Amino acid sequence: MPSSIPSLNPPHRLLLGPGPTPVAQRVYEAMGKPIVGHLDPFFFQINENIRPWLRTVYGTENPFTMVLSGTGSAGMEAAVSNFVHADTKVVVFIAGYFADRIAEMSRRQGATVVRVEKPWGETFSDAEIREAILREKPTMVGYVTAETSTGVWQNGDALCQAAHEVGALVIADCVTSLGTMPINVDKTGIDIAFSCSQKGLSCPPGLSPITVSERAMERLRARKESNRTWYLDFKLLDEYFGGQKRYHHTAPISMFYALHEGLALIMEEGIEERFARHKANHLELIAGLEGLGLKMLVNNPHRLWTLHTPIIPEGKDDMTVRKSLLDNYGIDFAGGFGPLAGKIWRIGLMGEGSKKENIALLLEGFKKALSA
Amino acid sequence: MPSSIPSLNPPHRLLLGPGPTPVAQRVYEAMGKPIVGHLDPFFFQINENIRPWLRTVYGTENPFTMVLSGTGSAGMEAAVSNFVHADTKVVVFIAGYFADRIAEMSRRQGATVVRVEKPWGETFSDAEIREAILREKPTMVGYVTAETSTGVWQNGDALCQAAHEVGALVIADCVTSLGTMPINVDKTGIDIAFSCSQKGLSCPPGLSPITVSERAMERLRARKESNRTWYLDFKLLDEYFGGQKRYHHTAPISMFYALHEGLALIMEEGIEERFARHKANHLELIAGLEGLGLKMLVNNPHRLWTLHTPIIPEGKDDMTVRKSLLDNYGIDFAGGFGPLAGKIWRIGLMGEGSKKENIALLLEGFKKALSA
Repeated sequence: MPSSIPSLNPPHRLLLGPGPTPVAQRVYEAMGKPIVGHLDPFFFQINENIRPWLRTVYGTENPFTMVLSGTGSAGMEAAVSNFVHADTKVVVFIAGYFADRIAEMSRRQGATVVRVEKPWGETFSDAEIREAILREKPTMVGYVTAETSTGVWQNGDALCQAAHEVGALVIADCVTSLGTMPINVDKTGIDIAFSCSQKGLSCPPGLSPITVSERAMERLRARKESNRTWYLDFKLLDEYFGGQKRYHHTAPISMFYALHEGLALIMEEGIEERFARHKANHLELIAGLEGLGLKMLVNNPHRLWTLHTPIIPEGKDDMTVRKSLLDNYGIDFAGGFGPLAGKIWRIGLMGEGSKKENIALLLEGFKKALSA
Repeated sequence: MPSSIPSLNPPHRLLLGPGPTPVAQRVYEAMGKPIVGHLDPFFFQINENIRPWLRTVYGTENPFTMVLSGTGSAGMEAAVSNFVHADTKVVVFIAGYFADRIAEMSRRQGATVVRVEKPWGETFSDAEIREAILREKPTMVGYVTAETSTGVWQNGDALCQAAHEVGALVIADCVTSLGTMPINVDKTGIDIAFSCSQKGLSCPPGLSPITVSERAMERLRARKESNRTWYLDFKLLDEYFGGQKRYHHTAPISMFYALHEGLALIMEEGIEERFARHKANHLELIAGLEGLGLKMLVNNPHRLWTLHTPIIPEGKDDMTVRKSLLDNYGIDFAGGFGPLAGKIWRIGLMGEGSKKENIALLLEGFKKALSA
């Protein structure tokens, strides 16, 4: 057994992939601050600060807006497990990995799952969505606002309208959109939305902000059989974070400090200004990549402002280009996976990472790598 | 919207309750270090470092020893949901809140649950355990090594032996024992053990170290129906943290940095030396509390070295005493809850918190408060 183990010395990576993404310095500093107990008034005050800020980034007035003690994937599982069970018929619109995972989690809950599928990277038209929902008459509908595997934005207006016409609730994955693009939970009609603490919120991964409509909470309260998931049970979590402050689990205090500061930065910037920054930087990066002769997987107006997916040009090798940017510029980004493995790159400009100087570095790096 | 939101300024609490517990300075520093990606070789190296250290603190050679991206409560849910389902008969030995929760999680999975109960704070004798297991012939047995609600250590030797005689696997809650008392997973015969990153490991809450025996992994591999919990599915997690490094979720990188440093501190101290420190400080605190006329809820040899539960003397008020120690010494500890609410205090000396100077402060504080 060594008598002295060197402290961790992580390499400096410029994280411009699909996530995790750059963390704000103020957030790092917050995680070094002394923790308090999970039932301390100071901890509950942090939550009282966080909740209205989350409502602002989500675009909602939902009272049930809070933070789960798990990553974005735990948020998806919470959304599914609280509302999808053996008696549920769920329609999932799938054109990428994360929508597929909503279907897989629903299958595990014993639900009847209708997969409406398109090739990865495509979007669903209002007519296609409406037809599927009116035909299947599900009790739940799942979709992904910002598909991290493809870079696609899926509009949810027609989806939520059709779902509510047949009495279904809507689950929306907002992992790669929250804090960077307008989600407008209330205006769109989303019932259950989940996201993560990294990406648009500029914190490390580890927490999942969620919001649930009153309509969905009513259905949850009427649910007779217990949620199989105790850890992610919204009823129990409501008793902890809500008025009763009843002990549930020991929350990850330092991560909540981080999220408080990440959201404070958004409030200071202003949510509209933040959206505008992400859009402007997105357009600048796309123009630059197209200027280098790259073509995008996703057409306008379906592109995310956060995640850019150029097609790997004929004759260029995925890993060689990525290694060139990592070795020469310290930039870490990702390739595609599943059916898009070796076919696209995934370049993220999110939160703290959405900066002019990062765009300049990326374009310089790609120019060098592509001309090699 | 405020143009400038003050940075968080948490109060300094000396956390000497049941948890969360004091965090080592080296751990705080680690969380301020730059994050890398969840598929970065540096991140997998951290895991390769962590895993043998966890085997040392657990006392096991289990290959499947890893870290879940959730708190200790998520660890309990993972242990239950991977092994308890509709076809399972589970016996749970309950003399406190956390054992009760194993039963509740099992009930939610649709299992047949046999609750073997005693009043909170008592222990089960070898004969009682053996009789119940041989009578019920369950497929799973659950118990708590260190009951955080009462301060009781439950020996597991006879339990594991009887369980294996009838072909059952054993789940053991090690939340308040790991890193402070010998658990001896292999020698005892525990099949699935879970814990948390705070308490004995001196990190903030947020992660759950687990270990699973080969016997249990075989049963898991033979399980036909999918685990309902995707997020905590050991088969999928094995593909991520194991040889294949297949993407599952985005791990909370900063928390893994923290755990790396918390475990490094244990390795530097030496596990036997650490156990001895906890035992010596435990004995010193008990002697001091008894010297002040306090009686303990738990008799020897069933006392935890981590959590001390003096009975609140007649005529003394729970909250008045706690407020006195908080106001005069900054010491935050807890009262009892459930059937022990208002009847005991819960005083923790764990990991970074198990120090001579904390004992001196505690005793000074209690002397002052009790004579008031």
